[in-house]
Parts: sequence; C-alpha cells; structure tokens
Amino acid sequence: MLIVMNHNAGKKQIEAVIKAVERMGFSAAPIPGSERTAIGVLGNKGYVDDSTVRTLPGVQEVIHVSKPYKLVSRDFHPRNTIIKVGGVEIGAGKRPVVMAGPCAVESEEQILKTARAVKAAGADMLRGGAFKPRTGPHTFQGMGEEGLKLLALASRETGLPFVTEVMSPDTVGLVADYADMLQVGARNMQNFELLKELGKIRKPVLLKRGMSATIEELLAAAEYMLAEGNSGVILCERGIRTFETATRNTLDLAVVPLIKEMSHLPILIDPSHATGRRSLVPAIAKAALMAGADGIMLEVHPEPEKALSDGPQSLTLQGFEKLMEEIRKLLDFLGYQQAAGS
Amino acid sequence: MLIVMNHNAGKKQIEAVIKAVERMGFSAAPIPGSERTAIGVLGNKGYVDDSTVRTLPGVQEVIHVSKPYKLVSRDFHPRNTIIKVGGVEIGAGKRPVVMAGPCAVESEEQILKTARAVKAAGADMLRGGAFKPRTGPHTFQGMGEEGLKLLALASRETGLPFVTEVMSPDTVGLVADYADMLQVGARNMQNFELLKELGKIRKPVLLKRGMSATIEELLAAAEYMLAEGNSGVILCERGIRTFETATRNTLDLAVVPLIKEMSHLPILIDPSHATGRRSLVPAIAKAALMAGADGIMLEVHPEPEKALSDGPQSLTLQGFEKLMEEIRKLLDFLGYQQAAGS
Amino acid sequence: MLIVMNHNAGKKQIEAVIKAVERMGFSAAPIPGSERTAIGVLGNKGYVDDSTVRTLPGVQEVIHVSKPYKLVSRDFHPRNTIIKVGGVEIGAGKRPVVMAGPCAVESEEQILKTARAVKAAGADMLRGGAFKPRTGPHTFQGMGEEGLKLLALASRETGLPFVTEVMSPDTVGLVADYADMLQVGARNMQNFELLKELGKIRKPVLLKRGMSATIEELLAAAEYMLAEGNSGVILCERGIRTFETATRNTLDLAVVPLIKEMSHLPILIDPSHATGRRSLVPAIAKAALMAGADGIMLEVHPEPEKALSDGPQSLTLQGFEKLMEEIRKLLDFLGYQQAAGS
Amino acid sequence: MLIVMNHNAGKKQIEAVIKAVERMGFSAAPIPGSERTAIGVLGNKGYVDDSTVRTLPGVQEVIHVSKPYKLVSRDFHPRNTIIKVGGVEIGAGKRPVVMAGPCAVESEEQILKTARAVKAAGADMLRGGAFKPRTGPHTFQGMGEEGLKLLALASRETGLPFVTEVMSPDTVGLVADYADMLQVGARNMQNFELLKELGKIRKPVLLKRGMSATIEELLAAAEYMLAEGNSGVILCERGIRTFETATRNTLDLAVVPLIKEMSHLPILIDPSHATGRRSLVPAIAKAALMAGADGIMLEVHPEPEKALSDGPQSLTLQGFEKLMEEIRKLLDFLGYQQAAGS
Repeated sequence: MLIVMNHNAGKKQIEAVIKAVERMGFSAAPIPGSERTAIGVLGNKGYVDDSTVRTLPGVQEVIHVSKPYKLVSRDFHPRNTIIKVGGVEIGAGKRPVVMAGPCAVESEEQILKTARAVKAAGADMLRGGAFKPRTGPHTFQGMGEEGLKLLALASRETGLPFVTEVMSPDTVGLVADYADMLQVGARNMQNFELLKELGKIRKPVLLKRGMSATIEELLAAAEYMLAEGNSGVILCERGIRTFETATRNTLDLAVVPLIKEMSHLPILIDPSHATGRRSLVPAIAKAALMAGADGIMLEVHPEPEKALSDGPQSLTLQGFEKLMEEIRKLLDFLGYQQAAGS
Repeated sequence: MLIVMNHNAGKKQIEAVIKAVERMGFSAAPIPGSERTAIGVLGNKGYVDDSTVRTLPGVQEVIHVSKPYKLVSRDFHPRNTIIKVGGVEIGAGKRPVVMAGPCAVESEEQILKTARAVKAAGADMLRGGAFKPRTGPHTFQGMGEEGLKLLALASRETGLPFVTEVMSPDTVGLVADYADMLQVGARNMQNFELLKELGKIRKPVLLKRGMSATIEELLAAAEYMLAEGNSGVILCERGIRTFETATRNTLDLAVVPLIKEMSHLPILIDPSHATGRRSLVPAIAKAALMAGADGIMLEVHPEPEKALSDGPQSLTLQGFEKLMEEIRKLLDFLGYQQAAGS
Repeated sequence: MLIVMNHNAGKKQIEAVIKAVERMGFSAAPIPGSERTAIGVLGNKGYVDDSTVRTLPGVQEVIHVSKPYKLVSRDFHPRNTIIKVGGVEIGAGKRPVVMAGPCAVESEEQILKTARAVKAAGADMLRGGAFKPRTGPHTFQGMGEEGLKLLALASRETGLPFVTEVMSPDTVGLVADYADMLQVGARNMQNFELLKELGKIRKPVLLKRGMSATIEELLAAAEYMLAEGNSGVILCERGIRTFETATRNTLDLAVVPLIKEMSHLPILIDPSHATGRRSLVPAIAKAALMAGADGIMLEVHPEPEKALSDGPQSLTLQGFEKLMEEIRKLLDFLGYQQAAGS
Repeated sequence: MLIVMNHNAGKKQIEAVIKAVERMGFSAAPIPGSERTAIGVLGNKGYVDDSTVRTLPGVQEVIHVSKPYKLVSRDFHPRNTIIKVGGVEIGAGKRPVVMAGPCAVESEEQILKTARAVKAAGADMLRGGAFKPRTGPHTFQGMGEEGLKLLALASRETGLPFVTEVMSPDTVGLVADYADMLQVGARNMQNFELLKELGKIRKPVLLKRGMSATIEELLAAAEYMLAEGNSGVILCERGIRTFETATRNTLDLAVVPLIKEMSHLPILIDPSHATGRRSLVPAIAKAALMAGADGIMLEVHPEPEKALSDGPQSLTLQGFEKLMEEIRKLLDFLGYQQAAGS
C-alpha cells in the first residue's frame, strides 16, 4: 500500500500518517519526492482496509498494491485449472468447448429437438434456462423445476452434460440435483449469498461477468466460491454495458488474454448476449476462439421467431450447424485434438 | 409497437410481417414512407414480446411504445404515493427526510453514539448495515442478526425508525422482524427472487438503483414488488458507474425531476455512495434537495478513520451536525413545514 | 512515481529497474513489502514518461504521483481565479452568472428578441452559436460570420457581453474580433491545435468538458491554454456520455465541489445539454447553483418548436423568466450581493 | 418518423400534431393503439428536424426511422468499396492488410530501422505520427514536418505506402503532400472543419472512431467527407471508453460484422490502442482478422522501453515478426490470396 501526501503536507501530517500506519501493525517507509512525499506501507499480508489513513489531514490518495482476491490469482496458483463437467474437460490446453441450447426451456419438444440437433452438429454441452431473470414481472419467467426435468431428459437422451442458471441460495440444492454445472447470471454476479452457497457444493459453476463489473470484481466474485471450497469455477464474458446501443452489449474480448495472465481459471465467451443479434454471432464466436477462449456459449432455437425470450440473438438449427463446421475447421487449424468420442 | 422495414423490403416481406402480427392476435397498420415502410401494431394491452416479428426477413427494427412496467407509472396512477415509516412520511409534498448512520453496525457503542448524535442533529431516520455486500470475501461482512438487534436498540432509544439492507430471500422475514424499512442494495436491484419475496411483506422497501441500471430497469424492478402487492416502495439514486474514476460513482441527479414525471413513487438521493468522498457530500446533499428529492441518505460515523467500511465517504458527527443546520435553513427557504415533533 | 514489481520478481529484475531509473536522472528507493517490492522514484519535477521502466521484466505497474497539469492546479496556485467578461466577474465568491440565449443564431429578429428578453429577465451574458458542430453534414451548420455580426448587434443593444463557439484554429481571430468570450465545444475539448491558438489570444475562453473526458483530461486541456499564456479559462460541465439514454447526457454535478478542490478556475454548469429535456432544466439549474457552480448556461428560444437545433432542451422566454425569479431568490438566500447595475 | 403520444393525450392534441406535421410539408398517419396513439410521418426524404413537433402538448417521444447519413450506407450503395493506397487494395474480399510502425517518428534511425523490419516481416503499409495529440502540453508533441520527411524517406526506401495523422484543417495540404493516406485520430472524429477539409482532397483517409462515439456517429463523420466528394474513407475501431480500466480502452469488435451490414466502407482494427498492453495485442490482432476486419494497425518500436509515447502497447520488432508469421498462416487458412508482390 502506498500513501500519497498532498503537495503542501507538512512534517507533522507526515508523522501522523506514519504513526497511524504503525498502529495498524505495519511499518511505514516515507519516500520524499521533489513535489510531494509518499509513504510505503510494509508488512501487510493481503488487502488492507485503508480507512484509518485515507482521511488523515494531508493525505491525497491511497494506492493498493495488493488485490481483493488471492485464490483465483495466477500469482499464487500458476498452473491452469482444468474443470471436468460430465466427460467434458474445460481449461487452457484442452480443445475449446461449445455449449448450445435455447435461452429458456419452453417444452419437451423444443428442448429435445434442440438437444438432438446441437449434439448432431457437434456441441459438447447443452444449455437452457429453467429459472429466468427478466427485467419486468409481466413476461415469461421460466418453467422452474419442470424445466430442470426436461433438461435432464434431453441430457440423458443425447449424452450432453448441461448447464442451467440458479437464481437464489435456497434453490442451489434443487438445481444441483439436476444440473451438471450451475450458472450464475450477470445480474447475480455480486449476489454474495448465492455465491457463498455455491461455494459449498461440489459441482462446477459458470460465473458470468456482471454488466458493469470490472475484471477485478469478477475475480473477487469467483474468490467467494473458492474461499468456501469450490474450486470448479469457470468465468464467462458476455458483454458489458456501454453507451453503444447498436448491439445489446459491448463484448470485452481482451479479457480472454488478460484473464489468462491474471488467473488460472477457464474463461468462456457468450457471443449471443454480447451482440444480441443473430447475424453478428458467427463472426464473434470464431473471433473468441481465435483469441484463446476456452469455449463459447451459444443460444440456439428451432424457431427463434417464436422463442419466448432472446429470439433475435438465437441461431437457427441450420445456422448453428453451419457455424459448427467452420468452428471445427478453425480448431483443427489451431492444432487442437478432436475431443474423445467425437 | 412499430415495425420498421428495410429500405429494400419488398411487398411479400411486408405482407409476411402483417400476417405474423395478425397471428399474434393484433392488427397491423402499414405506414408507407418515401424511403421505407413501417408497420404499426394495434390492439396490444401492455408490453409485447417482439421475437416473432423481429427476425422476419426485411425487418430492420422493432420499436416499443409500451413499457415493461405499469403499476409504478404515473400514467396509470397520477397521484403521488406517500409512504409512512414509523411516524415519518416520505413523498412529494412532504418535508424531505434525512436518513443517517454508519455504513455498517460495528458495536453497541458505535451505533448508540451515532444514533443519539444524528437524532440530536435532526435526522428523521437511522440507517446502518447488519448484512454487508463486499466485493471480496476477505473483508468484514457485517454483524448479522446481532447487528439488527443493536439497530433496534438504538431505534428504541432515540425514537428514530431504521432502515437496513436485506441480501437474500430467506432473510427477508428475519430483517422484517426488526427493521422499519428494508433496503435492497444496488448489487441486488435485479435479484428478482429477493424482489418477489419483498413484494409479499407489508413493510416499506428502499430500492437502490443498480450501478448500471437504466431508469426503466429501476422502475421495472420496483414493479416486481408492486405486482406482488407491496406498494410501499421508495426509489434511491446512489450514482451510476461511468468512465470517470475521480469519484466513486457518477450521480445522475436528473433522475429526480425525471422520476417525478414518470412515476408516483418517492425518490431519494445517497450523496455518500454517489461521491465516495466526504468533502463532496455536503454540496451534493443540498443540491439533491434543491432538485426536488424526497430525502437523502447519509453515512455518518463517530470515527470515520476507524470505520470497517466506507470510512472515506462518512461524515463525522460534527460534519453531519453542521450540514443539518444548512439543510434546515434550505428546507425552510423552500417552504416546507417543520416535521411534527421536531 | 512508484514502480510496483511482480510477486515473483527477483533481485536482478529489481536492480535492473533501479538502474533504469538512475539512467533517467532520478534516484530510486526500493520499498520491500511482504508480498512484493515497490520502487519509489525521487527527484522528478513534474510528470515523468514511464515508458523506459514500464516494460522491464518483473514490473507489474507504474503509478504516477504527479499529474499531467500544473498551472491549473490549486496546489500551485491556491487563490481563486476571477475572470472578467465585459463588466461581468466570474469565479468563486462572486455572484454566480447566468448566460442565456439560443443554441444557434437564426435571424436578426430571433436573436434580438431573445437578447432583450433574457436581459429583461436578469441574464448576465448572452450566448448563441454562429458556427455549429452537427453530427451529420445534412443539417443546419450555423450562419457563420453573419451570425457573429448579429450577436454583436444584440450585445450592443442590450449591453450583455456574449459568448460563442469557435471550431477551428483559423477562425479564432475572426471570432475573437466579435465575441467577448470564446467557447470550445465538447467535441473539440481535445482539439489541441485549437487550444494552442486560443492560448495565444487575450480573451477569456469557456472550455466545455468532452463527453467522455475525465476531470483530469479537462484540466489538462485547460493547461494547454494557460501554458500558452491565456489564464482566462472557465470550465463548463455539460453532462457526460453514459449507458443511460433517458436523458441526453448524464450531468456529473460532483465536479463542482471537486474542481473547486483541484483547481482555481471557475466552473459552470450547462443544464440544457446535460438533460436535453426542457422540463428537467429548472430543477438542475437550481441544483447546480446550490452545489456551488460559478454560473450556468441556458438555452432559451422564443419559439423552441421552430428552433433549427436543440429545440427540445430550450426554455421558452416565459419559462426562462420564471426560472430567473426563482434563481434570484435562491442567490439571495445563499447570501450573494446583487450584481452591480442589476 | 413516428410521433408517440402520451397515454392521456386527447383528440385536440392529436389533431394539433397532425396539423404541425402537415405544415412541415409531410402527411400524417395516426395509428391508434389500445394504450396510446402514435402518428406516422410520411413523405420525408432523409432526416427530419423534429423540433417542431417534439415539444407539442401530449407528445411523449419522436422516433426517427431515417438516419443522419446516406452516402456511407449500404442501403444506398450495396457494393463494397475497395480503396487503393499506393499499390495496396483495402476492402471486403481483398486480403486484409497490416499497417505497422511506431506511435511517433522520433529519429531517422528509428523510423528507417522500423520500416525495414516491418517490411521484411510482411507489413503492407507503414504508420507513424509526425503530429501527435497529447493529453497535456508538457509532453512530446511530435516532430512535425520533419517527421513527415522521415516517413517519406522510409516509405521510398521500403516501397511501403504510409499513413500519418493530420490534426488541423490548415495542415491538410502539407500532410497530403507527403502521405499516401491521412489519418483522423479518435479525438478529432467530430472535428467537423477538419473532416470538411479532408473531403476536398483526393487522397484516402483513415477515420478512427472517437472514444465515446456511436457507430451511427462514426458513419455520420465519414458522411462529411463523402458529402464533400472524397469517397476514399476507411473506418477504424480502436476501442471505446468504458468503466473498465484494466485495459486502455474496450475494443468493440462486433462493429466489424455490424459495419459490414450497415456500410460499404472498409473497417480496420487497431489492437494496440484498444488494449494498451503489448501482451494482449497478438490475441486481439488475430481475433480481429477472424471477425472479418479488412486489416489491422499495429504499433511497433525497435526499443519500446525508450519510446517517447505508447511504449507499453508497442510490439518489439521480434514480437511483430512472430505475429506476422501467425497472421500469414491465418490468412492462408481463411483462403486469401497472397498480395501481389509478396
């Protein structure tokens, strides 16, 4: 931690800061500059609450060298984490995975038809929502447990493990009974009670970045689960909220190489939510894999024009099949082995 | 709803859209323009899911005239809502209220000392956190139920009703047993399970705007509670997330007159979180009242430099007392009657 | 400047950084922490280009203590700057000013009628655009020099000094021949050639914050003019661009008290561009003055519904008159003396 | 254009809007809905100024169907534009180009060394700044015309055409005398005087997206040049400004497929400014090409640690060479022919 003093801070103010640092149990190292003095704080293990010093007279700002997370950091865990979901392995070095399915489960026919089609086209996992977060209360909110049962049915039929969203701490057990992986949606990235509950289970979790969350906050949210003992966390970038309205969100693709530097956890991209427009999805999906993503999530619907949610960003079955052919060629070009059993 | 066609959309495409609209049970009114055709959709009651038409060939965009909320809208409920919390009345026309207290309850001494001081200085309500949402898991997470008990004690002693945050659906009952008003924090504004649970109780709720939520989304979140039967919702602007890092958030003060136009619900401002810097709080607090806010929330701590969270933005007791004198004069100037019993 | 090393940085890497710092002519002070080492840089006068060290092996980040501006900083110039425009004084301690007029000069009748009305209502200065920056080329671009002549005529008639926008370095002389103060629009805040040219004249300049400019960048832009010798710079916040679309921009009102801390220059608020909606302007105008702004700029038009630009955010003459009455009472309440001659 | 009326708007208000539309010379088509009435405006050719109607009583909002640009739109010019710079062809269908060089020209040795190296590694064009926009006035501002001469020298030596930035209308002629293509930097995207001047020359222009410009504004800025007669405009995405500070900007990669839909102009990506970090550049460069960009711009410096600007984001010569090998393989995989003469 570094404490930067004002230009005009006097000797007494500097000494008061040093004493405050020492009262916190650390040592203080003044660095006199030609324009102002800074004071280094030594001896802390991890993040320090700076409130004691931030408000002392003469203090201009406090700069943290340590971060609000540790277990998710590559600094402290250099080797890549590989996460197994059913028979699928996800993480650096493994062939990137494709998770596909409808935004929401709507009927047995819809989910079975989609599951069979995405399996045939080469998807590795099935996705679909049974509990749906919706902006307003007057729209379709998902089929609930009935939806979980249909996902499980489609999963058994096709052999595809599935991921589905969980929205509250008290339904974690229920969702975990059915799903191979649980998803935390963007709106819940900082629902800390939910994160703590997910830290206690032993199933992998897909954590989506909040629409205005920084990378540091995303990693700190993952830290909640690792701190509780669940190390099976996969991160997912799905676009952030910016001033641009031509797309639903703005994909922050640089997080892929950046998270590879900062963390050992796998990182996926969701081109469907990132763009919100079907016609943009294929280009972004392939770009994500080129950038080094460990996988992608895609919304696919047999009849997008009749979808109860997110129709405009869902690929058709034909569109998905075509994209998968291109993805297969791209992954081959990138030198990945075919997945076992493919 | 209005469907805008591409420049080049042909007659067949236009007819296909009209048929799709009619299949949805509405009527379609084509508006041929010199550059392109648009098609008006008539007969809908409330928001229409546009997925059926958005993806048809030739459709450029779909524009919604109706909104994802209704009960919170002034259109459908022209009179201002006044909400009673203990003996305090909040809403348009009433003397604006001041809620004050520490970010987090830390000890009996701390909360009692603060409660007495803010009462003496003229605050209308006490605020304080027992359950704290924190970015990372390695920092103080609040005192939990013990904190609720201390808040209740301080409330009894001073006669100030209190508001405190609730973070998960399963603790709504617990928090409601103690608190006079329950707060939904910015990170939970779209925690829809929590909102639904709060819709079922009969205590008022303070709903903070999410840090990247639009006004429309804030109103739609409030709609969740009104739709479940709880009409005692107070909105609170606490700053949004932007590119500017000189302040903790960017206060969007225009929401005060804007929400007065759009909704009948009261709107408060939180200058502490909006700025994150103690020295900026008084100017913003007074500006908020000048803009027409129905009240303000302020963080106050007897020793901000020792606060376990948000110290840099907390006023000292002396600072709060001084600000309250200025606020009193301002509210008198604005023509508000003294609150009963003050 | 502080150089933060990686967790794993070894002794050799640290020594290499120290040598690099010394080659730059400064001295280096290592601060060993429990998790990583930081290296303080001593002896620099002003901002240091960090490229020499930022990319050395083992360096995690470089933190600047000094800022990219100096002359505009209160650190180096503690007393408030008061700027005279015609007979009007602008700056801390002086009665805040109101500049009013149409977005664009459209005709002699329009500008004269507006000037007389805003004068009668109590405005201190006239504003109006002769050169207009427009998003696309197919809309009204302003009357050019003819507009300047009409502004000068209206100014002579009413005795109100006027401010108008200048858009390119080669028209600075022309605009300065007519105007009492020159305005740099938000889109040109980092048009550095224009800023340099304005630094050479001896007329005051109103510098509007760019729509995605930080406070630091705004101050650095002002620094361009002070560095060239023009110290008559007034800053103006007019809203920044965020994800919220309910208003034209998002007013960042906290800059008022913040700039008062950071700089000695006056700061104005433009409620018209900040909100983009006439009905929101009065509340925001009064809030700005309450927050301590040194003045406000308002768009006023005799017939907003016929305005060639920005009609929806322009006050009517009646609306302006009513607002001025309220502002007069507010400034009296705040203890400001009536301006000389009012 | 569509005019949406308030829920409560009465018959008289609707009739007044219809009359206002007719006075503007258009016809009006009312679309009565179950909740409110909307009024379609027919007969306009291009964008309509809505100020006449926006402020009439009962009007809730005005929605534009037409756009503020036309010549750049694919709607009106379906075929892709191919732009020739020296012997290099840029645009859809052509092998994507790589422009490389230092942020700023610093010396003859530096630019010659870099130009030879990027030529040898396979670059198609040279880039380098002679006039530099810098946040503050106290840093290196570029070599000016001397820098142009050095760029021309390096260009002659290597046969690579070069692009360089122009910052003001009065230096357009000077820069055009030397450069093969002129660049408008992000800060000048809405410097309309500069755009108009560039519209009059017959050399190609590279237009960088402003850091808070929407796609619509970028296209409208390009429209300024096409409207003046210069159709040789290449667009360039270089990252936008968002709340995320881990990277210098946030790359909005979805603009590549989106601009391909909306416009016929070529679109490039600048991974150096988009990320601001050398280690992230290769992944983003390849992802950009995978997404369909018509080329990329890369900052390359023989000694980035000594660069006078943007060192941290500049590739080393070795780093660039390695990346070019990967890019060559990628473009071959994508099926592009080798460029003539390569």
